[in-house]
Amino acid sequence: MKIRYLHTMLRVKDLEKTMAFFNLLGLQQTKRIDNEEGRFSLVFMAAEGQPECPVELTYNWDGDEGLPSDSRHFGHLAYRVENIYDLCQTLMDAGVTINRPPRDGHMAFVRSPDNVSIELLHAGKPLPPQEPWASMENTGHW
Amino acid sequence: MKIRYLHTMLRVKDLEKTMAFFNLLGLQQTKRIDNEEGRFSLVFMAAEGQPECPVELTYNWDGDEGLPSDSRHFGHLAYRVENIYDLCQTLMDAGVTINRPPRDGHMAFVRSPDNVSIELLHAGKPLPPQEPWASMENTGHW
Repeated sequence: MKIRYLHTMLRVKDLEKTMAFFNLLGLQQTKRIDNEEGRFSLVFMAAEGQPECPVELTYNWDGDEGLPSDSRHFGHLAYRVENIYDLCQTLMDAGVTINRPPRDGHMAFVRSPDNVSIELLHAGKPLPPQEPWASMENTGHW
Repeated sequence: MKIRYLHTMLRVKDLEKTMAFFNLLGLQQTKRIDNEEGRFSLVFMAAEGQPECPVELTYNWDGDEGLPSDSRHFGHLAYRVENIYDLCQTLMDAGVTINRPPRDGHMAFVRSPDNVSIELLHAGKPLPPQEPWASMENTGHW
């Protein structure tokens, strides 16, 4: 081994909100470090069976200055999901905006509480078009 | 499976420069899509043996507006490396600034050509302190 991927790290403004968001997607916490001296928490969350590909949430207890409201430079995190309609419904019921609805039964984009772009791809062949997705407009960008 | 991690995507201003950078780290191209109609390229690069954890480089042939010069919100990509001194030397020889030199024989930070923060962690126990790293100052932030 020359090099191994470890994680993608995101700075977050509200740890509870962000953990709830990734829980909704289906990720579970795999490790948590609360550092009293440094006054920060690190929470690693991964999909079941993929502990080697976690997202690391970095939360500074006293706030984190200079976080932009949008991070276009950081493209997105991408996840393959079992049923894109079911997941988007779960997200919508929890108040998450579906920025790019899965009109095609295949692809959707949402944003984390910090506006980090999240791509969702349906596993396997696209689902048949179905309301409310088929006629839902885009919201903002992603 | 409810959800599977797919990739972390980064928008890049200079595809060749960025591919060269990730090559220096030891990543290899696993997939490339050149879309003439959409005038964009997608290049997936992963560590050997980890095709399931790629970084996706998105390059728009006509430029990509609004990319910030710094993306603090996007924390970093992290990689475990076989020998952190050797890799930092290779990077430095290629003109890459070692923003946080591996003074402790364990951890370093560098930036991609788009200023995306990259964390490097030495595999196993820290190496004994060694020049030029032991006395090298930090450069900027990461």
